[in-house]
Amino acid sequence: MAKEKIDVEESARKRNVEAADRNREMFRRAGVTVLNLIGSPGCGKTSILEYTARECEGRFAVVVGDVKTALDAERIEASGIIAAPLETGGTCHLTAEMVRGAAQELDLDEIDYLFIENVGNLVCPSTFDLGEDEKVAVVSLPEGDDKVRKYPSLFSRAGMTFINKMDLLDAFPDYDVGRIKSDLRGLRSDMRIFQTSAKTGQGMGRWFEYLRGGG
Amino acid sequence: MAKEKIDVEESARKRNVEAADRNREMFRRAGVTVLNLIGSPGCGKTSILEYTARECEGRFAVVVGDVKTALDAERIEASGIIAAPLETGGTCHLTAEMVRGAAQELDLDEIDYLFIENVGNLVCPSTFDLGEDEKVAVVSLPEGDDKVRKYPSLFSRAGMTFINKMDLLDAFPDYDVGRIKSDLRGLRSDMRIFQTSAKTGQGMGRWFEYLRGGG
Repeated sequence: MAKEKIDVEESARKRNVEAADRNREMFRRAGVTVLNLIGSPGCGKTSILEYTARECEGRFAVVVGDVKTALDAERIEASGIIAAPLETGGTCHLTAEMVRGAAQELDLDEIDYLFIENVGNLVCPSTFDLGEDEKVAVVSLPEGDDKVRKYPSLFSRAGMTFINKMDLLDAFPDYDVGRIKSDLRGLRSDMRIFQTSAKTGQGMGRWFEYLRGGG
Repeated sequence: MAKEKIDVEESARKRNVEAADRNREMFRRAGVTVLNLIGSPGCGKTSILEYTARECEGRFAVVVGDVKTALDAERIEASGIIAAPLETGGTCHLTAEMVRGAAQELDLDEIDYLFIENVGNLVCPSTFDLGEDEKVAVVSLPEGDDKVRKYPSLFSRAGMTFINKMDLLDAFPDYDVGRIKSDLRGLRSDMRIFQTSAKTGQGMGRWFEYLRGGG
């Protein structure tokens, strides 16, 4: 890669780190816990948040990133929580500045948890700090059980991972839940794992306990 | 975005266009048709190529891009066709130069089709020309039927789209195949659509006909 390209990328990354630190301070002062959800297109990020909005009591809001359209934000608003849409216009990940702009539209004093639904992508969002408390990875059964080995950059940075669409286990008899859990724990022994179906509600109780502070 | 960043990105893109043109000339002279497969992690790109290698007679080779590991290349080689692995080391898409390096390891005179399996990502790979004849989008039922609306940048550039994992239609009763086909044709009236299952073989016959020149 050309040296000038590396320099410019470094400087953009440095600006992002500074913006992320400012976000973190803003969230800390407002007493808001921020979770940054990262996963492939269609893995169930929006569905997990919809289910949470419907079934779990709490003061939540969501910043929803999409390359194009506000379809996900509309789905989330329909389930009854505040959603600030954020169309990236082609960019493959959210930046701290984008999140700041969207968060400023929200009344942070009215919420305890801010969920950031990142762009559907396992690669680019993993290295951009948005000022979150924790990155939350989402994988789903139909994607196959090799995702942790193939995208370690995300999973080594995430404090929690959803293994979603567990209701499809019979349809994917080769999917080795034990393997993916052991790959996750191999990267991070403290990884919090939720095995869920946002369709049937399976496993969502433990996630709600976590949100209610029961860990 | 800072002006210097735009300038450097422009210059990297310009280099990529030049390298893509050189690739195209190299492939044209060798009489190789090149298809660049782009889809989410776990949508079935590798499985489609494995099934094709096993069941369709032809002189094929594959360049397999992955951020980390050569797991997919190993799967493809096990099914009996030549696979050149290409670990991008963090980059979220292949570039024309990466493909050139991998293609130079292959004996192009021995093959008719070169499949490029891009990094699992619906965003970044869509705007990088690798010198292919055609971009081939792959979506799968579990991802949901809104992907064409959310990622038009890919589908407007692809000449063909696989709707894969059709064997799961009963498990996804809300998936509207008609809707996604109409979204695809809305972007490109000439879109060639294959409704397939690389697991059961459903719909793969039409793809094989295309490869054999029957369109």
